[in-house]
Amino acid sequence: MSSSVSNSDRKIVTGSAGSILEDVPHFTDDFPDCPTYPNPLQDNAAYSVVKQYFVDDDDTVPQKIVVHPDSPRGTHFRRAGPRQRVYFNSDDVLACIVTCGGLCPGLNTVIREIVCGLSYMYGVKRILGIDGGYRGFYARNTIHLDTNTVNDIHRSGGTILGTSRGGHDTTKIVDSIQDRGINQVYIIGGDGSQKGAAAIFEEIRRRKLKVAVAGIPKTIDNDIPIIDRSFGFDTAVEEAQRAINAAHVEATSFENGIGLVKLMGRYSGFIAMYATLASRDVDCCLIPESPFFLEGPGGLFEFIAKRLKESGHMVIVIAEGAGQDLLAESIEESKTLKDASGNKLLQDVGLWISQRIKDHFAKKMTLNLKYIDPTYMIRAVPSNASDNVCCTLLAQSAVHGVMAGYNGFTVGLVNGRHTYIPFYRITEKQNKVVITDRMWARLLSSTNQPSFMKHEDIESNQLVGEPGTMKW
Amino acid sequence: MSSSVSNSDRKIVTGSAGSILEDVPHFTDDFPDCPTYPNPLQDNAAYSVVKQYFVDDDDTVPQKIVVHPDSPRGTHFRRAGPRQRVYFNSDDVLACIVTCGGLCPGLNTVIREIVCGLSYMYGVKRILGIDGGYRGFYARNTIHLDTNTVNDIHRSGGTILGTSRGGHDTTKIVDSIQDRGINQVYIIGGDGSQKGAAAIFEEIRRRKLKVAVAGIPKTIDNDIPIIDRSFGFDTAVEEAQRAINAAHVEATSFENGIGLVKLMGRYSGFIAMYATLASRDVDCCLIPESPFFLEGPGGLFEFIAKRLKESGHMVIVIAEGAGQDLLAESIEESKTLKDASGNKLLQDVGLWISQRIKDHFAKKMTLNLKYIDPTYMIRAVPSNASDNVCCTLLAQSAVHGVMAGYNGFTVGLVNGRHTYIPFYRITEKQNKVVITDRMWARLLSSTNQPSFMKHEDIESNQLVGEPGTMKW
Amino acid sequence: MSSSVSNSDRKIVTGSAGSILEDVPHFTDDFPDCPTYPNPLQDNAAYSVVKQYFVDDDDTVPQKIVVHPDSPRGTHFRRAGPRQRVYFNSDDVLACIVTCGGLCPGLNTVIREIVCGLSYMYGVKRILGIDGGYRGFYARNTIHLDTNTVNDIHRSGGTILGTSRGGHDTTKIVDSIQDRGINQVYIIGGDGSQKGAAAIFEEIRRRKLKVAVAGIPKTIDNDIPIIDRSFGFDTAVEEAQRAINAAHVEATSFENGIGLVKLMGRYSGFIAMYATLASRDVDCCLIPESPFFLEGPGGLFEFIAKRLKESGHMVIVIAEGAGQDLLAESIEESKTLKDASGNKLLQDVGLWISQRIKDHFAKKMTLNLKYIDPTYMIRAVPSNASDNVCCTLLAQSAVHGVMAGYNGFTVGLVNGRHTYIPFYRITEKQNKVVITDRMWARLLSSTNQPSFMKHEDIESNQLVGEPGTMKW
Amino acid sequence: MSSSVSNSDRKIVTGSAGSILEDVPHFTDDFPDCPTYPNPLQDNAAYSVVKQYFVDDDDTVPQKIVVHPDSPRGTHFRRAGPRQRVYFNSDDVLACIVTCGGLCPGLNTVIREIVCGLSYMYGVKRILGIDGGYRGFYARNTIHLDTNTVNDIHRSGGTILGTSRGGHDTTKIVDSIQDRGINQVYIIGGDGSQKGAAAIFEEIRRRKLKVAVAGIPKTIDNDIPIIDRSFGFDTAVEEAQRAINAAHVEATSFENGIGLVKLMGRYSGFIAMYATLASRDVDCCLIPESPFFLEGPGGLFEFIAKRLKESGHMVIVIAEGAGQDLLAESIEESKTLKDASGNKLLQDVGLWISQRIKDHFAKKMTLNLKYIDPTYMIRAVPSNASDNVCCTLLAQSAVHGVMAGYNGFTVGLVNGRHTYIPFYRITEKQNKVVITDRMWARLLSSTNQPSFMKHEDIESNQLVGEPGTMKW
Repeated sequence: MSSSVSNSDRKIVTGSAGSILEDVPHFTDDFPDCPTYPNPLQDNAAYSVVKQYFVDDDDTVPQKIVVHPDSPRGTHFRRAGPRQRVYFNSDDVLACIVTCGGLCPGLNTVIREIVCGLSYMYGVKRILGIDGGYRGFYARNTIHLDTNTVNDIHRSGGTILGTSRGGHDTTKIVDSIQDRGINQVYIIGGDGSQKGAAAIFEEIRRRKLKVAVAGIPKTIDNDIPIIDRSFGFDTAVEEAQRAINAAHVEATSFENGIGLVKLMGRYSGFIAMYATLASRDVDCCLIPESPFFLEGPGGLFEFIAKRLKESGHMVIVIAEGAGQDLLAESIEESKTLKDASGNKLLQDVGLWISQRIKDHFAKKMTLNLKYIDPTYMIRAVPSNASDNVCCTLLAQSAVHGVMAGYNGFTVGLVNGRHTYIPFYRITEKQNKVVITDRMWARLLSSTNQPSFMKHEDIESNQLVGEPGTMKW
Repeated sequence: MSSSVSNSDRKIVTGSAGSILEDVPHFTDDFPDCPTYPNPLQDNAAYSVVKQYFVDDDDTVPQKIVVHPDSPRGTHFRRAGPRQRVYFNSDDVLACIVTCGGLCPGLNTVIREIVCGLSYMYGVKRILGIDGGYRGFYARNTIHLDTNTVNDIHRSGGTILGTSRGGHDTTKIVDSIQDRGINQVYIIGGDGSQKGAAAIFEEIRRRKLKVAVAGIPKTIDNDIPIIDRSFGFDTAVEEAQRAINAAHVEATSFENGIGLVKLMGRYSGFIAMYATLASRDVDCCLIPESPFFLEGPGGLFEFIAKRLKESGHMVIVIAEGAGQDLLAESIEESKTLKDASGNKLLQDVGLWISQRIKDHFAKKMTLNLKYIDPTYMIRAVPSNASDNVCCTLLAQSAVHGVMAGYNGFTVGLVNGRHTYIPFYRITEKQNKVVITDRMWARLLSSTNQPSFMKHEDIESNQLVGEPGTMKW
Repeated sequence: MSSSVSNSDRKIVTGSAGSILEDVPHFTDDFPDCPTYPNPLQDNAAYSVVKQYFVDDDDTVPQKIVVHPDSPRGTHFRRAGPRQRVYFNSDDVLACIVTCGGLCPGLNTVIREIVCGLSYMYGVKRILGIDGGYRGFYARNTIHLDTNTVNDIHRSGGTILGTSRGGHDTTKIVDSIQDRGINQVYIIGGDGSQKGAAAIFEEIRRRKLKVAVAGIPKTIDNDIPIIDRSFGFDTAVEEAQRAINAAHVEATSFENGIGLVKLMGRYSGFIAMYATLASRDVDCCLIPESPFFLEGPGGLFEFIAKRLKESGHMVIVIAEGAGQDLLAESIEESKTLKDASGNKLLQDVGLWISQRIKDHFAKKMTLNLKYIDPTYMIRAVPSNASDNVCCTLLAQSAVHGVMAGYNGFTVGLVNGRHTYIPFYRITEKQNKVVITDRMWARLLSSTNQPSFMKHEDIESNQLVGEPGTMKW
Repeated sequence: MSSSVSNSDRKIVTGSAGSILEDVPHFTDDFPDCPTYPNPLQDNAAYSVVKQYFVDDDDTVPQKIVVHPDSPRGTHFRRAGPRQRVYFNSDDVLACIVTCGGLCPGLNTVIREIVCGLSYMYGVKRILGIDGGYRGFYARNTIHLDTNTVNDIHRSGGTILGTSRGGHDTTKIVDSIQDRGINQVYIIGGDGSQKGAAAIFEEIRRRKLKVAVAGIPKTIDNDIPIIDRSFGFDTAVEEAQRAINAAHVEATSFENGIGLVKLMGRYSGFIAMYATLASRDVDCCLIPESPFFLEGPGGLFEFIAKRLKESGHMVIVIAEGAGQDLLAESIEESKTLKDASGNKLLQDVGLWISQRIKDHFAKKMTLNLKYIDPTYMIRAVPSNASDNVCCTLLAQSAVHGVMAGYNGFTVGLVNGRHTYIPFYRITEKQNKVVITDRMWARLLSSTNQPSFMKHEDIESNQLVGEPGTMKW
């Protein structure tokens, strides 16, 4: 490679023709002389038939692959996979796994496959589960994990380790890692948890501990940038079809029937968008990225009236984070409303918009609005076959990376290839539906809903990332 | 038969050994000399192999079948099925079908099988669907139905005819029946709709019209008396398992996790009870028939605290009609709460009890309560195989009864046999879970929940109907 | 009761008005003075609210319930349920459970609920599982069972105890029972296994052991007489819909498409019949009870040609035991065919008839026949909600009966009520589809297939049991 | 671009840094002056918010994306999507759609979305369905298609157009296209059908017709090269889990239980491989690409004996094309076997290997082998949510390409981007599992099965395509 520039802690390597590698940290950065060992996979019968099994150190994967003949090559990430030499003696490994944040189909498969990967591929014997999320590092006992205890867990939704949201103390966590002698930390969690992982990694580095930290990004909302899709997303979209089907049946069986389905997506509407595209029954899809308004020409109420008049029924899908500005206004207005619980209830956009629609049409026509919130029924299912394979490969990639000495990284599919991505690229922003991109246009075309946008909104809309990065 | 006494309009026939037949009206009651025809089924190739195909006129089915050797025989109902002679010339029949009230799995199968039964078995060619429930008789156009139009409808949930709740005008309905020349009316509906059917039947009789009215009882809650179970109930219990499973996964994945599932059952808790018995994950099942209280010793909060302490998580199933007295009190107390929408939201017992539980434990411990309301997702699914067969036989029984001149009846499974039941027996009271019966005891034993009852409640509890009438 | 006559070992009690009780053996028959204990359920908090919880000793359930006003009352069975006093001290109980024969949805639920019933209701602590069917009594170690080990087993198909078909040694089994001190034996198995249970019971009685033997009838084919339906049957019919749907899709997508589905039913065609009734896509249903022929006028080939001409496609359902006479002829004819494996393959009626159809039409037209055998995919699924409740109540009834001193009985639903039935009534014949009954007529009417019968066949056909005993 | 070389009919364009574009034909190749029109999408409200909606003419997608910093850029394909100008006046379009070959989940969704795409996006009104595959062009009437007729078809498996395998006459097809005035031909079919499409395209070109031909590759086996995955594959892998689960339950419930599942895959074992990876219950996966042998050390029988000894049960997955060499030998040996049908039956590798296993162990131990062939149950299901989206985007890409004047191309996902690929690249070879690649190594590691390979086999194994191209 022609030159390497470390942008503060970032490892940026530039190559020819505008090629850039955003590399991840490695044990040798801090411990240049640390010992290495031959990869035990070499002796694994299963792998003996595989030529060129180990990933070439120069293998990289480009972030942008829709290219012009002479465009610069752009950003690349390091390809995931097993390396010729590893930086851990298997007997010395004490690994731990923690799951953080909300539920997502596939958590148990990832746990299972980290355990099986460490055990079967690398002969690691000591693996701990952290109980109940980050706080479990210091507030709970650890859970012994082996291939027997994890054998059937992928058949169940949720996480056998338990999880939690919210605050934790990085110092105490690293104390616990240090005190217990843990040297591999696998963190399965979303946005916030990956930031937590980055902080833990920094603290570990500060203390000059030879401990590897790897993240497996978990977000049912698919709102993590760079990567193609997150595990569990496919299952969630599949499961959301049930709710949409029910909404459709309810809507079509009653006069002026409206079926309204709230789906996950606090900041990004991917589940709502893909569930709408996969179904054919949705008349209107509302997501956080696409502002809308209720009253007046071009507004939602007008569209509802029009659609009911045309076809007598309607299905609306709304992401939980859609219309937050409108909701905030409503709550502000109802400050006279003193009751705490009532107030809280209003914060569910689905309940709120149901009420607004009913109120609006109350004197105009008989509506039959049915509101369906399948959130927990979606989150809690076990992962489907596709996500099971996805989880397996993510877990194995994480294990290979850690054993190979990489550190402070997240594993992720980039254009269909597993890669190691520096934490900062995953946490610096969120993946969002680009509403000026073609995928959203496809949705608009499929629902025939108005864009609910004014021209100035369109102009000011910022493209986020490369359009159309979603693979399906 | 030894004697026959008509109790006002009721046809009560008494036999030997305390045998009583609660018979249904018949064309010959009002038109003693009306013509009859040989049953066209006689010429149907499919039936040619069947000996004794036609039901014997003396066949009856006892209501009570747990008997002592010398106990009186008790109430019987007339057995459903085809008769040797019919009271309609097939070419003269103009039948109509109406669906009323909320959705229930199997509506489309019943519609389909009435159409197919009339067409294939009796050669009837003119069948109308009434659009959107009772009001459709006079406010909408009718829908032409034949075996082609109904061929695939059983694969979808809901009702292709549309449905509605609420008021209708009996006079206008009978006017429409008379004006259009309809002579067979099939009414698929619940409690209230069967009362409507009884009123329509009375008005038809008053006008001396030769029009048959038959009811097919529809209630997803299984709250219609006399009959073993209503169609769609089996499917509903099956589908409810998804929600309970999700609640269980959510509950077990978080510290002090509570999964709370609201199921259908405004006045009777059958779905909640059977869904609880079919699952093994429910710690507490609350139904309308069993009063409970929240605070103090023996109350719900105490039980929750105990169960969370023991096992760290908990699943609660609540029927929508449970705890209405407590809810009413709460609403009364919050009258200061002026906001209409807030108020309305509180009327959902699931949202209300979720809030009460959260409030109660707010300062005591961190709860992770997840509330799941799968109502519309359950109602809207197509019927399962068992309910499909059930719907088919109900529809065929109704058609046979109408063709055979019976009138003003509801078809229903009684102890596993199809029977014709007078309207008044179906509408005079509701089927309820008998909480002093063994089935509820089985549930209590399975959940280990307290009875939430005081001794005086137990004493005053009235047995409703024969205990244990539910078949499974 | 007026008189009691023991017909050899049979306990037949006659009452008034032609009432007959076919009673089951009881400990007091052989041990008139054996001690009794108050039922521990009395102290169970869950049951404290239940009035009249215990079953009255005189409660019986009639076998025949379609009655005429003056018909004799006929045969009754003893009602199942808990009794005031029990014949075991809970601490003395050593129970064992064995599963025999082929798989059936719900086996694990029955196992679970026997264990939970004994533990939670009666405080029994010592329960053994017999490994791998009857032979496991003497050829394998026993498996310790408690409420923890069985907690989640109902979510899986199959049987955690293992099962086997075929020979066993009654003497060795009773030796093992005696040597191990087992005093309650729960046998979950079909036809043959219930005969085995009867033999074990006889041997136990001969040895004057105070050991209770209870059977829970298991037959996915629903071919056990007397009882309404066997557990797992509902699930099997549901699951069979998938295969029929696939056959329908294959048939309709190709020119002259035939989808042929083989379903379980060696001697009785209940699954085929109900699966056909629940679906609406079957054009022809072939079962063991209804003879058919292939060639010539009125034969299957003629019907296939006709149906393909009319609608271009066709779905055939065949029970595995259908057409055995034809199959036997074919095999006889092909005796020149020496190859063992080829021969064996031909013994699958589905493969055989597929080949015959293809051969017949080979020169006449292009057929696209797709053969589907979903047998193992049906047998191996976990039971659905309806069967879960069914299994629970059967298991609890068995436990109540054994604790109450009844012996040598099978539990079974009779007209929707749980009863205790003497072994001989269960094993003396098989339940079969009565093809001169209305249910089969309904099927013929639904498929419009010919009866494939000659007049003399019809005349000679014997009614087996009461027509229409199946409940749905 | 620096230079363009037409390799016979191939459009190969070379760019800088080793960049190669394998382009597809275009109307302007043959009709340089043909008129163009503004894309009607410009006026579509749904698209008005989308900046840069139209695909840049220079957009390409690389085939190989695991790159080294200085590696040549390699082969690229043209990016799919709408273009600024189109080569058809919407009113002049007469499009037709044909489905060929075996069933695959998603066929109806592709049909639906071509119709909806043409109608809603481009205002095309005349669309024909060809009945029953290629032969339908000249042997059957066409089927009128519009957005109403296709509205619900995606809920059903199969193809509403019908399909067929086997011979067809290219000349007659092109005659029909010419005579009917068809100018857009959409061909949904596999390997062979795409070759047929290429021949049709050549003939059209030869006749100098201005007719566009586009292929949508269909292969449930995923054996089409270049593309990431074919539609329906995801659904097939999901559905295969049912069969594997059943095999696992059967295997574990009996002594020496073996569950053997045959899955699709005549020449490539992708379904078997991914179904095995998605499940965790498979002990041995046999695919066409990986030779194996039965007897002797290192053979299958030895492995079966070992696994049964270790764990008492075993699940084997076999692709239908595996072990064809062994099967051929067996058939050769049994030539003495005269009977045609017996012979044919043996050609099912699942039946054959079941028999071989039974025969081998017949005298050694009692086996309980259950053979499951879920092929038709898998093929016939409707596509899942993920495949529904996939089908939608493929159909839209095909429509955009045809309207934009591209011709003789197949649409396909390449590294997650939709592209237009020349027919010859799709048909010149088949996609196969590369058994020296890591994905197969992962499988071996997961099942712990032997490689069944001798060293010389390993050496001679040819890498087919780039390893690891499968995305998941």
